[in-house]
This record gives sequence, C-alpha cells and structure tokens, in this order.
Amino acid sequence: MTERELLYLDDVVVGMSFESSEVTITADEIIEFGKQFDPQPFHTDPAAAADTFFGGLAASGWHTAALTMRLLVTGGPAIAGGTIGASGDLKWPTATRPGDRLHVRVTVESVTPSRSRPDRGMCVLKVETLTTDGELRQLFVVNTLLFRKPQ
Amino acid sequence: MTERELLYLDDVVVGMSFESSEVTITADEIIEFGKQFDPQPFHTDPAAAADTFFGGLAASGWHTAALTMRLLVTGGPAIAGGTIGASGDLKWPTATRPGDRLHVRVTVESVTPSRSRPDRGMCVLKVETLTTDGELRQLFVVNTLLFRKPQ
Repeated sequence: MTERELLYLDDVVVGMSFESSEVTITADEIIEFGKQFDPQPFHTDPAAAADTFFGGLAASGWHTAALTMRLLVTGGPAIAGGTIGASGDLKWPTATRPGDRLHVRVTVESVTPSRSRPDRGMCVLKVETLTTDGELRQLFVVNTLLFRKPQ
Repeated sequence: MTERELLYLDDVVVGMSFESSEVTITADEIIEFGKQFDPQPFHTDPAAAADTFFGGLAASGWHTAALTMRLLVTGGPAIAGGTIGASGDLKWPTATRPGDRLHVRVTVESVTPSRSRPDRGMCVLKVETLTTDGELRQLFVVNTLLFRKPQ
C-alpha cells in the first residue's frame, strides 16, 4: 500500500502488511525530548552519555515510541475512527541513535470481531520500527480497536 | 520512600514499592504533544474530539507514557546507572484527560541476578500511573536493568 486509505475491520486480513513513510531523528530532537520527558545523561548530554550503558547519545525509548506513532498516524493507511491502541507488548532491542532514519512496518497478526458490539473488533498488529539498514529499534505488538464499515 | 536514593540491584526486594511526585497535565500540553507525535482529532482539537470514540480531548497514550517516565526519573528513587527499560507490557485502561494530576506507583515484582554478568540483573517493576482519585491511566509491567553495588 502506498496510498492513504481509510481502513475498516472489514478490510484487514491476517498477514496483510504495509510500510510507512520515513523520519530522521536528530541529536537535537533526542536531547529536547530527553530534557522534557526522560532527563538522564544518555538522552540529554552527548559527552556524559559516553560513560553510560549506551556509550553515547541514545533516544529515550518513549521518543522512539512517539515517533513510531507519528509514522503510523501520518505515514500509512488511516484507520477509520482513529488509531487507538488499548494495550501491547513493547520491546526496544537496540537504541535509536542520532541520524537514524526510521520507518514502520505493520503486519496484521489477528482479527477478532467483537461478540457483544457488532460495530467493532480488535486486531493484533505487529508494529516494527526499523532503520534503513533493517535494524529493529522497537517492536510493539498492539491490540488495536477497529470499527466495521457502516452499512 | 520520600527521599531520593540511589538504587542498586542489592537494594530491591520483591514487594517493595514507592510513589513518585505528581504532575498535572493541561489541555495545551495534550494538544502540543498530539500535534507533534499523534495528530488525531481526539488529541489535538477539543471541538472535533467530542464526536470521537473518546467523547472529548484525551492525551495520547504515548504522552501518558512519557510523563510516567518523567515521574520515574525525577520523582522517585534514582536507579544507579539510569532507569533503563528493555521491554514490557503496556496498558491504557482509561484515557488521560486535561487537568488530570498524575503520580506513579512502582512495585517490585521480581528480582533476577544475571548468571552470565555478575555486575547486573533484571527486575520486573509494575508501574501504575494514577490520578489523585486512584483511577488507573496506565499500567506498565517492565523488565528493567539494575546494576549491583560496586564492591
């Protein structure tokens, strides 16, 4: 899929996937986000970061997560009614670094229509946040609310 | 615990818990974060939000997550070497709303020293993000890296 479509529960099938557009993360953005939400030396101070677990400036995992959301919302098919996650499993196998160019690959893992509410259902989506070299920066397997196409 | 301490793996035991300081989230902050990272009407436009699933302005779940991290990093005991999460289960049972005053309660669920690397270990922490009325806005059960006290 390259065009922006409006997705309903009726449209998705297991195995379906799409890739988002890309975004490049800069050191300044990493530091700004870090100062606001995750003020630790490895996210806010390149010099001090060298002596930490990360060995250099790294983005807060929540920054990677927030950028992933932006790519989902703006860079792929639009889910009718909004992209609404209820819960999920989140992993950061590697740290996001200054200059990383990220995109998101979404794969539909399951589709479960609601028994009690016929206008909606849940999908499990595997959301991979990847660099251009294919390194996995974040894996989010999320339970997402989808609505059915209005009759 | 009310004072800021430096925590090592040696210091934590199952069942130990602490509460962070508090932060109040405003409509302006919700909209600003939404425009930057999660541009959907229910996060960016109070009028348009009324007709959505949320029935009014709601914070992006990633905004709740980022504020939770800020409270963890600045409002409770400091973990030696940094607060570094590797993976976890994330749930948003209710939406964060303008005016919510949030704090974080952390409970240690397990402590596992590394077999291969004697200087560190993993803890499972239950991180609850709560309003002053005790409503649960986010639950994050996270695998966290902790270092041992240097000998």
